[in-house]
Amino acid sequence: MVIYPRTEEEIVAIMSICNKNKIAITPFGGQSSVTGALDTLKGGVSLDLTRYFNQVISVNETDMTCTVQTGMFGPAYEEYLNNYGQKYSCGHFPQSFEYSTVGGWVAAKGAGQASTGYGKIEDMVLSLKAITPAGIVETKTYPASAQGWDVYPMFIGSEGSLGVITQVTMKIQKFKPQNTQYASFIFKDFPSAVKAMRTCMQEGIGKPHLFRISDPEETEVAFKTKGFENTWSDKVLKALGYKWGQRCLMFVAVEGEKNHAKNVVSSIKKIAKTNGAFSIGSMPTKKWLEQRYSSAYMREPMMDLGVVTDTVETAVMWSDLIPLWIAVRAYLKKREKTVVMVHISHVYENGANLYFTFLSPAKKGKDMEDYIAYHKGLINTIIKNKGSLSHHHGVGKILAPWMRQQLGEESMQLMQAIKQHLDPNGIMNPGNNLGLKD
Amino acid sequence: MVIYPRTEEEIVAIMSICNKNKIAITPFGGQSSVTGALDTLKGGVSLDLTRYFNQVISVNETDMTCTVQTGMFGPAYEEYLNNYGQKYSCGHFPQSFEYSTVGGWVAAKGAGQASTGYGKIEDMVLSLKAITPAGIVETKTYPASAQGWDVYPMFIGSEGSLGVITQVTMKIQKFKPQNTQYASFIFKDFPSAVKAMRTCMQEGIGKPHLFRISDPEETEVAFKTKGFENTWSDKVLKALGYKWGQRCLMFVAVEGEKNHAKNVVSSIKKIAKTNGAFSIGSMPTKKWLEQRYSSAYMREPMMDLGVVTDTVETAVMWSDLIPLWIAVRAYLKKREKTVVMVHISHVYENGANLYFTFLSPAKKGKDMEDYIAYHKGLINTIIKNKGSLSHHHGVGKILAPWMRQQLGEESMQLMQAIKQHLDPNGIMNPGNNLGLKD
Repeated sequence: MVIYPRTEEEIVAIMSICNKNKIAITPFGGQSSVTGALDTLKGGVSLDLTRYFNQVISVNETDMTCTVQTGMFGPAYEEYLNNYGQKYSCGHFPQSFEYSTVGGWVAAKGAGQASTGYGKIEDMVLSLKAITPAGIVETKTYPASAQGWDVYPMFIGSEGSLGVITQVTMKIQKFKPQNTQYASFIFKDFPSAVKAMRTCMQEGIGKPHLFRISDPEETEVAFKTKGFENTWSDKVLKALGYKWGQRCLMFVAVEGEKNHAKNVVSSIKKIAKTNGAFSIGSMPTKKWLEQRYSSAYMREPMMDLGVVTDTVETAVMWSDLIPLWIAVRAYLKKREKTVVMVHISHVYENGANLYFTFLSPAKKGKDMEDYIAYHKGLINTIIKNKGSLSHHHGVGKILAPWMRQQLGEESMQLMQAIKQHLDPNGIMNPGNNLGLKD
Repeated sequence: MVIYPRTEEEIVAIMSICNKNKIAITPFGGQSSVTGALDTLKGGVSLDLTRYFNQVISVNETDMTCTVQTGMFGPAYEEYLNNYGQKYSCGHFPQSFEYSTVGGWVAAKGAGQASTGYGKIEDMVLSLKAITPAGIVETKTYPASAQGWDVYPMFIGSEGSLGVITQVTMKIQKFKPQNTQYASFIFKDFPSAVKAMRTCMQEGIGKPHLFRISDPEETEVAFKTKGFENTWSDKVLKALGYKWGQRCLMFVAVEGEKNHAKNVVSSIKKIAKTNGAFSIGSMPTKKWLEQRYSSAYMREPMMDLGVVTDTVETAVMWSDLIPLWIAVRAYLKKREKTVVMVHISHVYENGANLYFTFLSPAKKGKDMEDYIAYHKGLINTIIKNKGSLSHHHGVGKILAPWMRQQLGEESMQLMQAIKQHLDPNGIMNPGNNLGLKD
């Protein structure tokens, strides 16, 4: 049963009834989860906030914050900010942007394409209001504080397991797209591209917002689909030593004040060249940004064509990144005729994410069972190579079985104690979500 | 009783004995707390980690991280990093630096003078190990992740109430002091200085590391003690409209790659001038940095001279900053002959801290009782004007009575549930620390 609550009082009332009768509640936003986080394994009530909790409550231009209801979809939120006062942007553009809500971003601990500059969603949220079976947790908004440990971060990444987040106060950014500076590069190989990227993050040159490397296989797929392969330019590149199957694309965009953006791009260019890169101008990055959201819709049509496709992603420290990339690619390639495309798209001083997209022909017969075993081995390979269970997709029900071994018994027990306190009857998004007992 | 444990096994054993016998444990670092956090109201055992838990465990130059034992003092830690490999810095320099430990920084959720660039301690810690009565919580190190909500942040700001933090893995910075660029300004008044500072943080020009404004009263005290008052330069400044009792000093230092640092300083200069500032070169900021740690030792001698002096600090959103500054100054001035010096020293996109230092002649007779009532009214004034209870001193026992009203019943209950899970017998730093029941 899907309920569209109109007020917080209604949510409190529904929660009270469900809590007394031990009926499951699953908070719904845009439902673009790829981790089974919203699979209502225990039936019950789905609380859909997109119909009546979809408004901006207030914008504070002096503080550069926005208080927004969590059922608001990405495009509506961004459009509102773009047109407000001195013009702002939310700064958060996940690939699911068009079909995801503010609440989903927060609940799943997401990241957008500009995260290298603006941070993940947990770096943007300053306070929130959450309705839980144990009461309403509402936190005050400060730029920073030392009032014990903060409680609002527990709801970021809670994936509906603790309560319903009804509103958040978030940082917003100045909307000045005319200032953005772009650059694109080809590197001779993946390690040199990664080294350049790491150097950019560690030398204190200022941060890019979009910062992305495609590994050799993803680079060649991009070249092929864009009709670049075997053009005159491609031949020149190859002659210069940027070889097929080794070379890597890097995309860069820097936002903010124009001179600052220019200076950061200029520093990145220097570091890229020192690491053997060939600068290919601003167009490839701009083109990539234009088609940014379209590739997400490929999965279903591909499956109709008899192609199995999936994605997994992880975060890893710099010193473990190349070994993890090698090990996971090798694992994925064990399945015959598998195309494995990898990119880095969220970058930090101390490490980065790795995002794997893989496609292979569907097998006849018991392919689903095969795939489940294959996926299990894949996650094990990531963990064994020091990757996190997820960087921004979240855990949901699909990755839940790994939580205990990954976090350790004491950390899981601590999470469970928090769950137990806020949701003693285990009604919030039950069914082993996050590996929590209901 | 003070115990100097030699190994984690010893800490586990001591904790087990104390837990069975309900004996209080208070973890000790440098003991520079100003909030009564380490007052052992219930006696018991003080676990001092400075003797045997004072080593760097490892530095990873590729990841730019350091794993360090929490009993290491600031200067030893910084010296170690300055001399390691390609040379690094911890990037965290609180005023207590010389007498505080890594563990104290983390437990009290501190901030250093370069926090505007590098963040507070909670922005530097990537993982930690804590021994609690419920077991050892040890987290893995990732640049970011989405594995449910993280548990390690609960120990940052826990002030000894949850367990003993034995080691942390933190970000480190490149140590390149020769690159640092400095600037200093005089503004005509506090609001224009604050507006310039806010603009610098919100325009996307890159971040300064040290960023500081002294309000008019602190500015005049600085001018007087530095022998600047009534010099020829002072007369010129006054003639230019930078009037006594209104003008404000701003200090700026930008670290990182040299060109980047120059560009950021140049952008700050432009914004400062737009807001009516007079540039006074790099010397005042450099001079201030040289005497940085000495003023902390003034409190005791002042008291011997019959002067009561104290400090309080808060964090506040930009739109509430000036009203809070006015209200708190007015409150403090109610006490006769009180000198009130205020500065902003930790700056964010969305707000900043305010640090109040106040001095007044000690009264005869029941001055202590008077002072307690005065202090109570002061904290009430801060909260009423939308300031946090603390930005970086922490809560301890002195501010504990305000926690419930400040955080709200539901948040306090959630914190209490976490305390209850990790420390069911209430042995960790008991005595209402953080407003938690033991």
